[in-house]
Order: sequence, then C-alpha cells, then structure tokens
Amino acid sequence: MLAMTLCAMQAWAEDGYDLWLRYRPLGSAQAETYRQHASQLIVGAATPTQTVTRQELLRGLGGLLGHAPPLSDSVSSDGAIVAGTPASSPLIAQLRLSTKDLGRDGYLIRSVIVAGHATTVIVGNDDVGVMYGAFHFLRLLQTAQSIAHLDLRETPRIKLRVLDHWDNLDGHVERGYAGNSIWDWQKLPDWLDPRYADYARANASIGINGSVLNNVNANAQILTPLYLEKVKALAGVLRPYGIRVFLSVRFSSPIELGGLKTADPLDPQVQRWWRAKADEIYQYVPDFGGFLVKANSEGQPGPQDYGRNHADGANMLADALAPHGGIVIWRAFVYSHEQPDDRAKQAYTEFKPLDGRFRANVLLQVKNGPIDFQPREPFSPLFGAMPKTPLMMEFQITKEYLGFATHLAYLGPLFEETLRADTMVQGKGSTVARVIDGSLHGYALTGMAGVANIGTDRNWAGSDFNQANWFAFGRLAWNPSLSSRAIAEEWVRMTFSNDEAFVKPVVDMMMGSREAVVDYMTPLGLHHLMGNGHHYGPQPWYDGGPRADWTPVYYHRADSHGIGFDRDSSGSNAVAQYAAPLAAQFNDAAQTPEQDLLWFHHLPWDYRMRSGQTLWYELVAHYTRGVDEVKQMRETWRGLDSHIDAERYQQVAAFLAIQEKEAQWWRDASIAYFQSVSGLPLPPGFAPPQHPLAYYQSLSFPYVPGH
Amino acid sequence: MLAMTLCAMQAWAEDGYDLWLRYRPLGSAQAETYRQHASQLIVGAATPTQTVTRQELLRGLGGLLGHAPPLSDSVSSDGAIVAGTPASSPLIAQLRLSTKDLGRDGYLIRSVIVAGHATTVIVGNDDVGVMYGAFHFLRLLQTAQSIAHLDLRETPRIKLRVLDHWDNLDGHVERGYAGNSIWDWQKLPDWLDPRYADYARANASIGINGSVLNNVNANAQILTPLYLEKVKALAGVLRPYGIRVFLSVRFSSPIELGGLKTADPLDPQVQRWWRAKADEIYQYVPDFGGFLVKANSEGQPGPQDYGRNHADGANMLADALAPHGGIVIWRAFVYSHEQPDDRAKQAYTEFKPLDGRFRANVLLQVKNGPIDFQPREPFSPLFGAMPKTPLMMEFQITKEYLGFATHLAYLGPLFEETLRADTMVQGKGSTVARVIDGSLHGYALTGMAGVANIGTDRNWAGSDFNQANWFAFGRLAWNPSLSSRAIAEEWVRMTFSNDEAFVKPVVDMMMGSREAVVDYMTPLGLHHLMGNGHHYGPQPWYDGGPRADWTPVYYHRADSHGIGFDRDSSGSNAVAQYAAPLAAQFNDAAQTPEQDLLWFHHLPWDYRMRSGQTLWYELVAHYTRGVDEVKQMRETWRGLDSHIDAERYQQVAAFLAIQEKEAQWWRDASIAYFQSVSGLPLPPGFAPPQHPLAYYQSLSFPYVPGH
Repeated sequence: MLAMTLCAMQAWAEDGYDLWLRYRPLGSAQAETYRQHASQLIVGAATPTQTVTRQELLRGLGGLLGHAPPLSDSVSSDGAIVAGTPASSPLIAQLRLSTKDLGRDGYLIRSVIVAGHATTVIVGNDDVGVMYGAFHFLRLLQTAQSIAHLDLRETPRIKLRVLDHWDNLDGHVERGYAGNSIWDWQKLPDWLDPRYADYARANASIGINGSVLNNVNANAQILTPLYLEKVKALAGVLRPYGIRVFLSVRFSSPIELGGLKTADPLDPQVQRWWRAKADEIYQYVPDFGGFLVKANSEGQPGPQDYGRNHADGANMLADALAPHGGIVIWRAFVYSHEQPDDRAKQAYTEFKPLDGRFRANVLLQVKNGPIDFQPREPFSPLFGAMPKTPLMMEFQITKEYLGFATHLAYLGPLFEETLRADTMVQGKGSTVARVIDGSLHGYALTGMAGVANIGTDRNWAGSDFNQANWFAFGRLAWNPSLSSRAIAEEWVRMTFSNDEAFVKPVVDMMMGSREAVVDYMTPLGLHHLMGNGHHYGPQPWYDGGPRADWTPVYYHRADSHGIGFDRDSSGSNAVAQYAAPLAAQFNDAAQTPEQDLLWFHHLPWDYRMRSGQTLWYELVAHYTRGVDEVKQMRETWRGLDSHIDAERYQQVAAFLAIQEKEAQWWRDASIAYFQSVSGLPLPPGFAPPQHPLAYYQSLSFPYVPGH
Repeated sequence: MLAMTLCAMQAWAEDGYDLWLRYRPLGSAQAETYRQHASQLIVGAATPTQTVTRQELLRGLGGLLGHAPPLSDSVSSDGAIVAGTPASSPLIAQLRLSTKDLGRDGYLIRSVIVAGHATTVIVGNDDVGVMYGAFHFLRLLQTAQSIAHLDLRETPRIKLRVLDHWDNLDGHVERGYAGNSIWDWQKLPDWLDPRYADYARANASIGINGSVLNNVNANAQILTPLYLEKVKALAGVLRPYGIRVFLSVRFSSPIELGGLKTADPLDPQVQRWWRAKADEIYQYVPDFGGFLVKANSEGQPGPQDYGRNHADGANMLADALAPHGGIVIWRAFVYSHEQPDDRAKQAYTEFKPLDGRFRANVLLQVKNGPIDFQPREPFSPLFGAMPKTPLMMEFQITKEYLGFATHLAYLGPLFEETLRADTMVQGKGSTVARVIDGSLHGYALTGMAGVANIGTDRNWAGSDFNQANWFAFGRLAWNPSLSSRAIAEEWVRMTFSNDEAFVKPVVDMMMGSREAVVDYMTPLGLHHLMGNGHHYGPQPWYDGGPRADWTPVYYHRADSHGIGFDRDSSGSNAVAQYAAPLAAQFNDAAQTPEQDLLWFHHLPWDYRMRSGQTLWYELVAHYTRGVDEVKQMRETWRGLDSHIDAERYQQVAAFLAIQEKEAQWWRDASIAYFQSVSGLPLPPGFAPPQHPLAYYQSLSFPYVPGH
C-alpha cells in the first residue's frame, strides 16, 4: 500500500517526454478484456528490427495491461500474439497470407486461429512492416478500440516520409522553439544519448522513415570525416527503426572542403569531387538516404552562380549518389534577388520549364504554399504543373509563423486543406494529395517532408499540443487522405485520456485552433505581416530593408483606397499559374474564396463581402473573432482540470494565457495600423485597440528564439 | 504485485534530474528505525518559506520512509518533529533555546522532550534558518546517520553564497557544457518553468543564497523593463528559498540605454542615471541583491575608459544601491591590453593600491588563482593583501579548463587546496579561508561565488559527477573548513547509494580525479596549454593572435634549454606579491612545491627533481600517470555496475571512455610537442605518442560548445 502511494507519486509525474507512447495502465475492465487477447507473445529477435519490435510490444503491453504477456515460441493458448514475416516465422509462413503487395513497409493485422487457438497475427514482408504493424496494434489498445476481430491491411501511400531538421552544427535550431538541437555533436560518436532511440521510436510509431539531420542552410563541415563519424553513429541508432539518414549539403562544398576554384556542376573536377564524397559517405553509412539541397535561394550558393540551371545542379549530385541508390531532394523554394516580379510566382517560373529535365533519383521539394508557411496560403501552383518530375511536399511542423512554442495551433487542418485542394490539372479530383502520392502523374518516387519542431525541451516540441503536429504530419505522410479530426482524436487518446468528456471538447478545440490563428494574425488572405527577421508578433507597418519582398507592406499593399495583393490578370497575374478553371475563379474577386481574397486581390475598404458588410468591417470582425476564439479555448480548458495530470494541465493553461495576450496584441496592433492607413472609424460594437499604434511600433525583441 | 512491477519500472528510471535530493525509499530496517523518530510533523505554513520547508519535509520523509508522517499542531507521541522559530511557534518558544547567535541562516537540531514525548526540534531565528535545518535533517537520513540523539548547531561562515550564471539573454551559456540557459526569457514572466523551483530547492539544500542571473560579459538589455519584468518573476520563485537575485551590469549602460554621451562614474548625469535605475529595479524586486561588474577586463567597458579607477566605478554604483541595501560585487579579474607585464601580476598591481578606497557595500571578487581557473594555480596573491577591502572568492564550477561535461573531475580538492592555502600575511594560519570568511581582517561583508555549471540538460550539470561540484561549492561556501572528502562521501550517499562497497571506491576515485586532470593536462605548474578560444583539447604549440597572453607559448616558455615561466626575482618577480616567507620560498626553485614548479620557474630540461630524475623525465612521467589514473578510474567503475541504476551507470562509463581517449590525446600531443622543442628522446619505458605532432596540430574543432 505504501509502495502504491509512493509509486503513484513517482510514476505519474508527467512531463510530456513519453509523447503519444505513454502506455499508462488502462482501466481494469478494459485491461482485463485486452488480456484475453494478449496471453502470450511470439516475436523473433534475430534482427535489430525484430528486437526493437519485441521490446516495444513488451513495453507497450506491459505498461497498458500492467504486465507483459510471456514470450513464447509456439501458440499454446487463446490470445496469442504472433508478429513476424513469412521468411522469419514458419508459424506465419504456414498461414499463407498474401503479403506480396505489402512492400517493405506494409503489414496485416488479423485475428486468426493457430493450432486451434484464437491468435492475433501481425505480418509483413519485411521486419520494418512488422514493426509498423506492432505500433498500430498498440495504438488500438491506446485508443480503446476492440482487438477481438481484426482484419487490417496497411501500406503507406507515400514512399519517403521525412523530417527536415533545421539544426546547425553549433546546436542552434533555425526556427526552433523547443530548445537546442537534440544531436549532441560534441559527444558523438562516443556517447549515444538514449534520447536518440526514443526519437526513433516516436517516428517509427507514425511511419516516418527518413531524417535530414542538418539545416538546409547547410554548413560544408557536415561532410568532413569528423562529422561523418558522428553521422554514422546516429544512423546506427536509427537504422533498426527503419529510418534512413539524409544530409543537407552546401552546393559550394567542393570549394570549401575540396579547395576547388569552382562548384560549377558541369565542371569534371567538381563532378569527381562529389562522386568521391558520395563514395566516402557510403563507407560510413551504407544505407545513406541522400542529399537535401537549398540552392540559389536566400543567398545560398547554387548552379545559377555558374550560369547553369537547377536541373544541372540536381543531376550532377544525383549522378554521384545513383551508384549507391541515394537520391537528391532539391528544394523549389527559390526567389531571385534581382527580378522584381511577384515572389509568389517565382518558384513556378523557374521550375516549370525544367519539367522532365531531372534524373530519376531527384525529388523536387515544394512548400505547401507559394510564399512561406503562412497561417494560410493557397496551394503552390507547382503541384500538378510538373507531370514529369516527382514533387515532394514540404510542410512546416515548427510554428515559425503560427505562434512559436506557446500558441495552441493544431496544424492537421492546414495540412489537410492543402492535401485535399483540387489542382484541376486533370479535371476534378486532381488533388494535391494525388499529385504527391504519385497516382495522378505516375511518379516513381514520392515523398513528404516536415520541418521538425523537435528540440531538447523535455517535451520535445516546446509544448504538449505541439506534439500533435509532429504526430499529424507522420500519419498524413503515411496516408494523405486521413482526416485531421480522426488524427487529433487518436493523438488525444494516446497522449492524454480516453475519457469522452475530455476527448470531445479537446478535439473540437484543436480543430478550431488553426483558424483562430489565421483570424488574429492574417485573416482574409493577408500574409507575411509578422515581425521582421525573428517573425515574432505583428509588424504590418514594417517597410525597411534589405529587400521589399521581406516586408509586410509588400504583401498587404494597404493604402487609403484599399488592401490586398493584386495577383489577378490586371496585376501580377499569378492566378495564371493555376489550371484554367482555378485561374478563372481566382481571377474574379466575386468567385475567390474569401479566405484567400486579399491574397489574390487588392480591394477597396468598402468592398462588399458575402456577409453584406464591408471589407473593413469583416477585417476588424475576423481579428476580433480570433481573440474571442482563444478566450473560448481557455474556457474549454478551464473545465478539464480534473481529467489529466496537474503538470501538463497547468502548462497548457499558462500557454493559453500567453496565446490570448499575444492574440490581443496581434489584433490590436493590426487594427491600429490598418486604421491609420484606411483612415476609417472602427465599426460600431468593436473595442478599440488597447494602445495607440505608436506603442506597438515601439516594441522591440532583441533575443527571440529560433532566429 | 503487478502495480509493484509497473511501479518499479516507472519509479526507478534515473536521469539525474533529482540531483542529491532523490529521497528514494530506504531499506526497510533503516526506514523502520527512522520512523520511530518521525511519527508526526509539526511545522507551520504561515509564510512562503515555512510552506516550502513543510513541503520539503513531507516530500523527503515521504520518499525515504515510504510515507510522510501526519501533520499535527501539537506533540502527542514520541518521534514528533517540530520545525520553526520562537516567533512562529509557541511550542518552540517555550523551549527557551538560545537562538540569538544564529542570525538569519543558522539553526539548531536537537533531540528534546516535549509534553513528555521524545521530539526532534529544528529551530532558527528566521524561517530561512529553519529551512536550512530541515534540509540538514533530511541529509542525515539520506546519509544513513542516526537521528536518535541530535544536538547540532550550524551557522554559515560566509554571508553571501552565490552562483554566477554566465548566461546570455539569447540562451547561450558562456563556458556552459550542460545545454542552454535554464532561464526561458522568451516565456518569462508568464510561464514559470517548474524547473526554477527545483533549482531553488537544490541551492537552498546546500545553503546557496544568491544567484547572478546573467553573464558577467553583460548585455545592457537586462536593465530594460522588458527584462526586469522577467527578473521579477524569477525573483518571486527564488525568494521563498532564501535566494536573492543579482544582475551583471554593463558599465556603459547609461550610454546604451540612457542615451548619455558618457559612462564616466564622476559625471553627475551618469550617477543620476544609475540611481534612477537602481530605484526602478527595486520597484520590481524589493530584495534585489545588487550588481556584479566585470569592468576594464577583456574588452568590457569600465571607469578606466574615462581616466578613473576601479574604486571610482564601484563606488558610484555602490552609492546608487546603498539606499536599498544592495551591494556591488566588483571583479578583480583584470589584465591590461596595453602593458606587457606578466598577466599573473596585474590584478594585484591594479587593486592593491586601492585597498580601503571602496565603499562599505562593495565586495571585490577575486578568482582563486592569478590567471584563470586552471587545473592548478597557486592562490591569488590578492588574498591577504587587502585588509581594508572585503575580498570574495570566485571559483569556477563549470569545467572550462578541466574537461567540459565529460571528464570526471571532482573539484572539491581544488577548492579545498585554495581555501587551506596559507597566505602567511599575519603569520602561520592566515589561510585563504580566513581571509574570505572575514575572520583574518574583520571584513563586515563576506562572500563566495561559483561560476555555475548548470544548464537545460536533464541532469542539470552535463554529467552526474558534475553535480558533485555544484554540491561541494555550496557546502564549502557555508563552511570553508569542511573536508572535500567528507563532502564527496555525503554527495555519493545522497546521489547514488549508502552501500559501503560503492561509497568507498567512488569517493576514492573522486578524490584522485582532479590530480589526474592536472597530470594529463598541465603537470608541474604548467598552465594555459589548452585549445585557443574554445579551450577544448591541447594546443601547447599555439602562438597566434590576437594577444600573446592568450597563447600557451606565453605561459610555458619552452625552448631547447628548458621550460617554465620565470616569475622569480630574476624574472617577472610575481613571487614578490606574496607575503615575505612565501615570496622567499617561491623564489627558490629548490623550495618551491613541485606541483607549482614551472609556474614560478623556467628550468633546464635536465633539472634534477626530488625524485632524482630529470625535469624532462618527470614531465613525461606525469603526463603518462594522468592517463593511467583515468584507466584506473574506468577499472574502478567497471566493478560497480551492480550497485546502481543502469542509466547512470552507463553514462558514467561512456564518459570515462571519452575521458581516457582525451587524456591520451592530451598526453600524446603535449609530449610530441615538448619533445619537438626539447629535442630529447623519450625516456626509456614510456610509450611514444600514437601520432606525429603534425597530426595533433592538424585537428580543428569548429563548433565546440560554450565558446
């Protein structure tokens, strides 16, 4: 009894480290039901992946059911669990299940009879598939679903499911809000932080199979033996979990490391250097994934420095990796320092003409929207525009533009909105999801990348709810047609509680949270209104250097007459980059969805919205609603304290308070500014900003994280 | 039973976060004995400090004994524990214990009879003293001592026991090897990380009563309202634990923040600005401790920029703080960019003439040695040389020069060696400890500062054993005459185990560890041989810019004839800064302790050591012994795996492996270099370096932490 008290004291202290793999004991009734289907465990340990699969099942069932089922070699009672491949398990081989279409990552979970006993089998072609199946099986218990009669078949819709870490070698994480890089380069390769394996477990549990270890603003040093030794050590930890390591490379590395005078992709010396470097890397990491490259973008070196194009650069690297089966992920996030054209058009302008010019082992990584991970953007017109070039999605999980660590903003709906957007390139149903899963254009390679929100903070992601964005990214990379609501519910049950009185309101709160951010930051298609450089807080008035397209005024174009970026045929004509039917729709303000209105159109303040109110009224109304939505989120949370641990409850409550304060700041500063431009009185019924515009303009924040 | 298994699983995962306050259940026999003296707990909760004292006793006894004794208002059974002050507790008042000499921080712990029942009383004049007593009482249980017949009386020998955090506002910790700053400035003041309170508990448990929140290389921003709001919030968390907040200030703040043209301490505008700033700070933090100042040192601004001296600068700030009871801690760590004199002499040269010129609320903070926190330095000659100016000790807890996070180097013996050093300024027994505790010169103010090794790493200090250095600093600041061995034993028992089979070998290993570092890094009085800038690894050959006294060659002076820095009367005559008897001793190589030989003397390679061997032989022998000592430490640890948890056992083992590798590197690179200078063959019986000198010289480390 004492022990129990003590135990309780110690065991339940929650700090978020366990993520959605908490495996806390289930209610006794629930546990009893499951125990009938978990009487013995038959899973091999002949390979590292089999071993981690067995460990996870023991850990998960042990935690959820109070004790793990005994390990066994054969089925001798009802409720056995058998996990393996036909090749590794004669017991599974004899079941003659059709596994040939499962590939490396797919799996079956079936309730069958083995040796006269009710048995659950988790089957794959490959150990990795079995591991994914084991995590799925555990998820069923974690989310309180029946495991009595299972007949599940899962294969990923996308091949490459990758986290991009914008981690510098000095430990700083660009746009990171959860502490430093989890890669302890100084102590690698000699000390392998147990956290690395927990990182791998968390990713494997949601199907992530690639990790780009370093920032796309890359440092050539990562390719030196000093660091490749460290990369090798990390790859060794991630390998059993089916995760391959990738590196971001600096295009000018042959100059910095090789002492060459040029990095011209058509220069034979340069090509030789990269081939030799690739050969060297594969000596360290035989299953190395490949390179991620940010070239000729925001000051990074690239092929254009030598009069070559992106295909020349990507193909040169692709040829160096091809002999080893490696790939090049080339980013389409480019905009020229020179040409004054609408920044939203430039990726399309540069890459569309190169369609079909890339090697077979090149993936083009395109951000979800044409600008840069704003709270809302229309999908990038490149999706659907390059049928002969596999396009990979790049989402941002870290909340650079959505409130950093503290704002509760569930990004599932943002991801879903993009994936379900219809490009119309082959008529209705040509969704972005079907572009990137390859089904629309028959891409051989497919991929989805998420810019990680992971750091050394104990809870990994900077807040408990930020963990949901990591989770949602992984689940959608596995299956882009999942619903973000279903994913949110899964996550809430695994992370907090299966108590319906908690699940329902929290899922509702999550589902509304991203729209709240859009409302209090950038409603009605506005974008890029945040603080200069560090991106913290509102700064719609900023019009300073070094470049116009880094300033909010470039994007909102507000003046005494109206507001919005004219991208229709009378303006930059960015609309023409979309398929004809969409181009026509976006070209007409009246047909443009109001959520994107000011993205595509510059309109007078008194423009009539569908509500019958003026644009000015709706702008103020949306900003105000954003704040009210956060107040409602706080209200919702206030009622839930009895359902979860005090530690996480209190941090969420404190962060929601910060979010309300900052939402109010965004709303008031933005309204104060736009009012100073429009010269219009505040519509009746709306509270004036708490401070004059000058106050908001006077604020400065010298040491914002992630900058 | 299941619960027990589960509990065990969860409760015993050790990550070092709990430091020496682990409070894990004691053996049942031990616990039973203690329970007889812990039958009820009588402690008030009328003040924040009483409340945290009560919480700590409940937490500690609950953990150690399995359950906490019930709270009560009166003694009704044998084994009661009563904690409080005569003022707060009538029960204690009636005992009429003499508490008048206890001051604010002192306490009594006595076994007495109350209402006919055997009772343990923890008594102070002030709530803070009672809190310290409560931690002491818990320590008795944690270290398996009897609590049956207690008669303890403790008062601190030093008033100000302070941690200096070299934490920048961007989260980077200068010379920090345990992650980022624990101060989350971005989320302050709205989010108070529970870690802040745990930081305060750990410090309070060892008597630390001050915290300098920011780097001595100070940023003026810390004095802006934006940051003072955050400082106020932190001060609020630390206050109940008896910890006052201090800030490092930039001397030129009146220019950066006040828009003044000067920071001249004699300028009335400047004086007014600082007075107003001090008034403002005390609005935020009524019990603000004061300023720590690094001026005219390593490029920091200071009074000398205006032709004034250090006293002018310190006194000006002291006058601003005096009305509020604040103090100025002025660092004596200075050396001129201009004059070419021996750097070891400069602090003395500059400050000695100022003795008696400082205000009463100024403390002069002097590093333990004349140079900069080397593995071994003779004590600074300033100690004892300024009878009219209170000198405060500055030790470095973070291991900038002793192996960063991974090397096991227990600094207790280093601290003890300095504190017990005899300055002889008033004849034998004029120890450094008696200088800084004020007993020698009758200082009114006394203090000891430690440069913290604390960061966001889960284990706080970068390794489990680094925690011992934080602990030892606090214990010695409370009582400088404690033995470092006794402190090590306390720490081992509290942190790991009371099992004698573990305690003895681990304490022995700790006690030898610092000498091992001296041997493999800088034996026989050598110093400052580490890598340039980042201070990682050996670089005795470095002779580059920007200044000679930042290069190893400046300090070792090795040439074909000999090695060492000639500081005797024929050289820089630094020896003359010590009291006559010591000056005479250090001036004579034959009388100089060999551990300091090359600090004071430049000697020929064939100089005869006391061993009868040559200096060259002994140099190689010491370097070799250093590596052997680390091998022995690994051997010792290898035998102890059964005594503690696997998590901490394995990390220590991995770090010891790194230490051996780096000790070998230090030994081989140093011998290879000195051999290239001496031109001498390796003495017989010693292994040659593993690589040629050129290899060691080719190594470079671009992203070393803490730089």
